[in-house]
Amino acid sequence: MLSDEQRDRVCVVLVRARNPNNIGAVARAMYDLGFGQLRLVTEFDRPFEGAKAAVDASEVLGTARVCRSVAEAVEDCTLVVGTTAVGARALEQPLEPVAEAAERMTAELAGEAGRVAILFGSEKTGLSNEELSHCHSLLTIPMQAHAGARHPSMNLGQAAAVCLYELVRGRELPKRSAAESAMAARESERLAGLLREVLDEAGYMRHHPANSGSEDLRRLVLRMGGRATDGPVWMGMLRQVLWRLRGGQVSEEQRDLDAR
Amino acid sequence: MLSDEQRDRVCVVLVRARNPNNIGAVARAMYDLGFGQLRLVTEFDRPFEGAKAAVDASEVLGTARVCRSVAEAVEDCTLVVGTTAVGARALEQPLEPVAEAAERMTAELAGEAGRVAILFGSEKTGLSNEELSHCHSLLTIPMQAHAGARHPSMNLGQAAAVCLYELVRGRELPKRSAAESAMAARESERLAGLLREVLDEAGYMRHHPANSGSEDLRRLVLRMGGRATDGPVWMGMLRQVLWRLRGGQVSEEQRDLDAR
Repeated sequence: MLSDEQRDRVCVVLVRARNPNNIGAVARAMYDLGFGQLRLVTEFDRPFEGAKAAVDASEVLGTARVCRSVAEAVEDCTLVVGTTAVGARALEQPLEPVAEAAERMTAELAGEAGRVAILFGSEKTGLSNEELSHCHSLLTIPMQAHAGARHPSMNLGQAAAVCLYELVRGRELPKRSAAESAMAARESERLAGLLREVLDEAGYMRHHPANSGSEDLRRLVLRMGGRATDGPVWMGMLRQVLWRLRGGQVSEEQRDLDAR
Repeated sequence: MLSDEQRDRVCVVLVRARNPNNIGAVARAMYDLGFGQLRLVTEFDRPFEGAKAAVDASEVLGTARVCRSVAEAVEDCTLVVGTTAVGARALEQPLEPVAEAAERMTAELAGEAGRVAILFGSEKTGLSNEELSHCHSLLTIPMQAHAGARHPSMNLGQAAAVCLYELVRGRELPKRSAAESAMAARESERLAGLLREVLDEAGYMRHHPANSGSEDLRRLVLRMGGRATDGPVWMGMLRQVLWRLRGGQVSEEQRDLDAR
């Protein structure tokens, strides 16, 4: 898991991206996943001005740097990783699935001076050989080949989301509340015992002895995978059933409700 | 890694998706990552007809099923997983990061009868409590909280890309060609030996003995991490340098080329 400071040393570099909406989509993915360094290699000034403002991406777009060359965009980076859809082109660099590349990038960012660039090419042609020559390594997202279809390539915003997701993948979720924790073994055991009483009383055990051993019932309850707060609820239900099975009387009022 | 047949038992269910472009983006992610079963819970007929045709997604959209309720959309599924951006809402089901949820789904698909649904809610409100009540478990993508900003939520197409990517994450890349394999140890050793001769001849070893031991040079060469086909190239370069160091003469023609 990357710290905020480490994520700040990751630059997303879009090379000759043409569609302002795609630039906005990449910025949105960066914002959502906690990255802020966007660099655009283009001959146009701020090519995203015409974009519909991507929700929440304005912060990322506002600080994006426009560069005239790949060399300028990656000059302060210690690891430059190009993205590619594996095609017929012979690749000059080692090619890794994005999961492996993320490990390499994380290792680089573990060093205080490490700074990583991830390059994405234009929607139409990807990165050129000259652009790829700036990369230490290449990554690709495993995609499905379709018979008779053109060479697969992923939508720019989606590709960026997957690559950045890999870098935050190990991040932990906020701690769960007690209510979401699983039922303790003690509770499961009590529940299994009460279930056994119910089944015995109901005559089930006589008819299905193979399903009614203590161990079978314990496993059955454990497979329910109940939450801690579910325990008392189940206990209450079973107690009620047992009470009825043992001849407990139901009030007129309850009988009316049951009949509805 | 899921087989084609297993991926065919994964249904993506979009509940009340409003924006046809988002539906197209989800279809595109499915197509790229090799999934084909799309179901739309909506009161409108084929709500994506108005969408700009998402590149290559027409195959997925063409076979999409329109359902009137979540219950109908998931009726044949043995594991139903809802997606959520963790918010203030108290969740009734276990919540897992998408990486863990993918393991659960993969285990379910390992059984021949397993069929998995992944539910995505509307862009604005996500899944309602009623819709969530159809889910065995919930997954979330770890996102960055921004001070003062609204509750984070991800673009629908990007969220689908990340979830489906997790299901194909382990898939292997096509085997590399021989040209991409690393330099064999024999080749590295030869290169290190030749480098030593060059450095000796150039006087470097006298000035920097600490950097010039055989082991230092071997490690230096290994860190280059060269490819098999790079070996002969490096050897050729070093031989040429050595030749010059030892007093080899350069032709007039070569001198002209060097001067340019």
